Amino acid sequence: MFLRDLISRLGGEAIGEVEHPLDGIGTVEAASGTQITFLANPKYRTALEHTKAAAVIVGLQDRDITSRPRIIAAKPYAYFARVAQLFHPVVRSVSGVHASAVVHPGATIAASAGIAEFVSIGANATIGERAQIGAGTVIGENVNVGADSVIAAHVTIYHYCRIGMRSIIHSGVVIGADGFGFAPDFQENTGCWVKIPQKGRVIIGDDCEIGANTTIDRGAIEDTVIGNDVKLDNQIQVGHNCQIGDHTVISGCVGIAGSTKIGRRVMVGGGAGFTGHMEVCDGAVISAMTLVTKSITVPGMVTGVLPQMKHEDWLKNIAHLRRLDKLANEIKEIKGIHKKGSAS
Amino acid sequence: MFLRDLISRLGGEAIGEVEHPLDGIGTVEAASGTQITFLANPKYRTALEHTKAAAVIVGLQDRDITSRPRIIAAKPYAYFARVAQLFHPVVRSVSGVHASAVVHPGATIAASAGIAEFVSIGANATIGERAQIGAGTVIGENVNVGADSVIAAHVTIYHYCRIGMRSIIHSGVVIGADGFGFAPDFQENTGCWVKIPQKGRVIIGDDCEIGANTTIDRGAIEDTVIGNDVKLDNQIQVGHNCQIGDHTVISGCVGIAGSTKIGRRVMVGGGAGFTGHMEVCDGAVISAMTLVTKSITVPGMVTGVLPQMKHEDWLKNIAHLRRLDKLANEIKEIKGIHKKGSAS
Amino acid sequence: MFLRDLISRLGGEAIGEVEHPLDGIGTVEAASGTQITFLANPKYRTALEHTKAAAVIVGLQDRDITSRPRIIAAKPYAYFARVAQLFHPVVRSVSGVHASAVVHPGATIAASAGIAEFVSIGANATIGERAQIGAGTVIGENVNVGADSVIAAHVTIYHYCRIGMRSIIHSGVVIGADGFGFAPDFQENTGCWVKIPQKGRVIIGDDCEIGANTTIDRGAIEDTVIGNDVKLDNQIQVGHNCQIGDHTVISGCVGIAGSTKIGRRVMVGGGAGFTGHMEVCDGAVISAMTLVTKSITVPGMVTGVLPQMKHEDWLKNIAHLRRLDKLANEIKEIKGIHKKGSAS
Repeated sequence: MFLRDLISRLGGEAIGEVEHPLDGIGTVEAASGTQITFLANPKYRTALEHTKAAAVIVGLQDRDITSRPRIIAAKPYAYFARVAQLFHPVVRSVSGVHASAVVHPGATIAASAGIAEFVSIGANATIGERAQIGAGTVIGENVNVGADSVIAAHVTIYHYCRIGMRSIIHSGVVIGADGFGFAPDFQENTGCWVKIPQKGRVIIGDDCEIGANTTIDRGAIEDTVIGNDVKLDNQIQVGHNCQIGDHTVISGCVGIAGSTKIGRRVMVGGGAGFTGHMEVCDGAVISAMTLVTKSITVPGMVTGVLPQMKHEDWLKNIAHLRRLDKLANEIKEIKGIHKKGSAS
Repeated sequence: MFLRDLISRLGGEAIGEVEHPLDGIGTVEAASGTQITFLANPKYRTALEHTKAAAVIVGLQDRDITSRPRIIAAKPYAYFARVAQLFHPVVRSVSGVHASAVVHPGATIAASAGIAEFVSIGANATIGERAQIGAGTVIGENVNVGADSVIAAHVTIYHYCRIGMRSIIHSGVVIGADGFGFAPDFQENTGCWVKIPQKGRVIIGDDCEIGANTTIDRGAIEDTVIGNDVKLDNQIQVGHNCQIGDHTVISGCVGIAGSTKIGRRVMVGGGAGFTGHMEVCDGAVISAMTLVTKSITVPGMVTGVLPQMKHEDWLKNIAHLRRLDKLANEIKEIKGIHKKGSAS
Repeated sequence: MFLRDLISRLGGEAIGEVEHPLDGIGTVEAASGTQITFLANPKYRTALEHTKAAAVIVGLQDRDITSRPRIIAAKPYAYFARVAQLFHPVVRSVSGVHASAVVHPGATIAASAGIAEFVSIGANATIGERAQIGAGTVIGENVNVGADSVIAAHVTIYHYCRIGMRSIIHSGVVIGADGFGFAPDFQENTGCWVKIPQKGRVIIGDDCEIGANTTIDRGAIEDTVIGNDVKLDNQIQVGHNCQIGDHTVISGCVGIAGSTKIGRRVMVGGGAGFTGHMEVCDGAVISAMTLVTKSITVPGMVTGVLPQMKHEDWLKNIAHLRRLDKLANEIKEIKGIHKKGSAS
């Protein structure tokens, strides 16, 4: 691959030697003399002076930042991602059904799909063209997996759930387990929780990626719905009846309680939480480990987290939180005295 | 199914046409003309005026809130849950052991139990009547699964753990992995952690539900014990030697460190944490994302979470937390001056 | 086993009857008359008076705290751990490959390794001497599992990842799923996230333990690296390109965003978070549920969590956080008046 090949496939403008052979991608610091790197974050400008990379992808404003062979692109990071995809294309497993797989006779498997060992596929399930199902994955009855989707090993998809096209689901993901719904039926000292059957589905759109060990519960009555191009990191919990809009990105360990409706192009930091039955508008940004308890109606960042402190400082300062109301009253009182004083 | 059928099975009083055919349940907003809905939350009263539902389950105080055919029940939500169970009975898998399952000859499987494909069952394990074991689930040696329990696909139950009757365990759950126990043995710059063998078990009672990807560690010396009718949501971590009392309900993503003893009918919000070696009394309620570091001895709600703010407001206000002690001292000082002033 | 056997194997000094037969370990409170217990925490001294244990392991300073047969050890807890290991040695599965396992002909399995049922092992994978692979586990292409490591049931190890020697990996763990890396390519109302291929590996050292359902993502370009003797509890998320130093211990439910570099002998409390692209120095201690947003450069404890309060107290006190800036300004103003007052 040469610089000119990248330009011809992905566009952009090349400056400098375009015939230098390239065999991969690298970071500014670690790229070898046959790799291409990129500059998207200004703080790496200094490091760029010392890079060994054969070529660099830079933004329009950084056109002359280096004398190395370079590609000028409007969005250098996205350009780099596409270059990386060229160097590291998705490895497709072979098509066909492994002899050990248990496929219900009523299931429909596209001829170009690949079904690995120990896969279980239930009645009336449909697996689309070129879709891949990893070892040991369990596909329930009436599940639909769209064309070109990649389901890794050890995924569980419960009955009637639907996965769109070109989506990637990583290992340990559980889609469509029962939502958490129980009605209390207690008197005095007797009684129990009554389970509410969870009859909705999980519907996942096209071009999504779901990280390892994430769980998405099926709806109680209606469906749980994940839009298109939604990216969920690892270990996320999505409760029943949630809706997540297109292009939304959610970092790891986030918990989303039932019936939360998250808009389009929302960004959620790691470990954040949503208490459920609320709406989050398009374009909202939620900081890491922030608990959202009320609807967000205006785009922009929302935060609610205590900053890190030396433990001694924390002890000293945070103790006052328990008497903040008293402190506030004391200030009020003092102001009252002053006012009275100046009035007299 | 007709309204009169529900009354004859579940009790309550019917008002209006009891011969209208019903074929399912729905929400107040979305129910069709052949579905039954319910009103438990007063905020849906207005929506009830526009419902298309064939019938409504209402509480004693809402007897006349609608002219539609209705059922009057003391606990309309629990009544609705039972109606939903009638319309959506649990689908039992067929009994018998799938040809691909690997069952140790020393295991005991009830004739009415259903063992799916790729299940592994260890020596001396016992699977009760009508119990179901989902595809790919691994049941260790000497494990006991009670009658009528449903273990979904991809569950792992380590050796010697016990699951009671009528309990439901969802996919990805791991029961009985080693608790997190290591003794430090370090000198200066050498040394290592010494693993403490985890020889206790996990004992889960009857009528429990354990959500997808939840983990419950085996005890170190004694057992980890989950009572009856305990409901755990997804992605919860229960450390070794914990005890959780009957009817307690814990939302998703909660982390419970070792030797925490949680009482009966406790409710825990999502993402909360317990630092371990403490007791939480019966009837306590812990808010979402609250860290419990001390025992709770009085029923009622406990909270410790920062509210969500616009990021600019957070920056402005929360910075002062780092000097709250100084602020408090300044107030004290001012009060001293005033006192002195008024005394003079 | 007798007290003298322990001394001869593990060192330490015995006081009292060394011929009493011992058949196990127990807690101070629950040990039977044939079990040995230990005292490491002073708060159990009183309980020690009532113990039924046959013998006790105590520290140098507690030499005469009891008249029972006892072992004096510099580190009684570590000594106890080693005694427990003697009573509860790891049970090795039989060696050999189960008939149902699917092993690629290009994989290399040591003759003394044990491969359980439904295991899948990819091309060029290597499984070391005496290593054990539990039921249903999926080992990708070119994975290397070191000698004496124990991989439990239902573990997924993606291609090219490496596990050292004597490490233990619990069920549900996912090692080497794709890191969370996407470049935004949006204009106005169109566009999408461009996936950045994740071509790094996960490298895990010797003597590590990885708890159930923990996930460790593969690096984007470089590797994700876990050192030696690192102990990770359950449900932890480690992002791409993280590095974790030797002997570091991390409690459950912690989320570590990409490119976090954690030093040696760090201790992290449950539910803590790291926002990524930072360094945490050797010997740092992070409190439970604390979010680390900046590098930690000095050993010692760092905390950032709101204390638990009665909900009424929380409502009353925490409301002021939203106007803390206003309160601080009022204090400043009052101080100004006083200053002016005293100046006049």
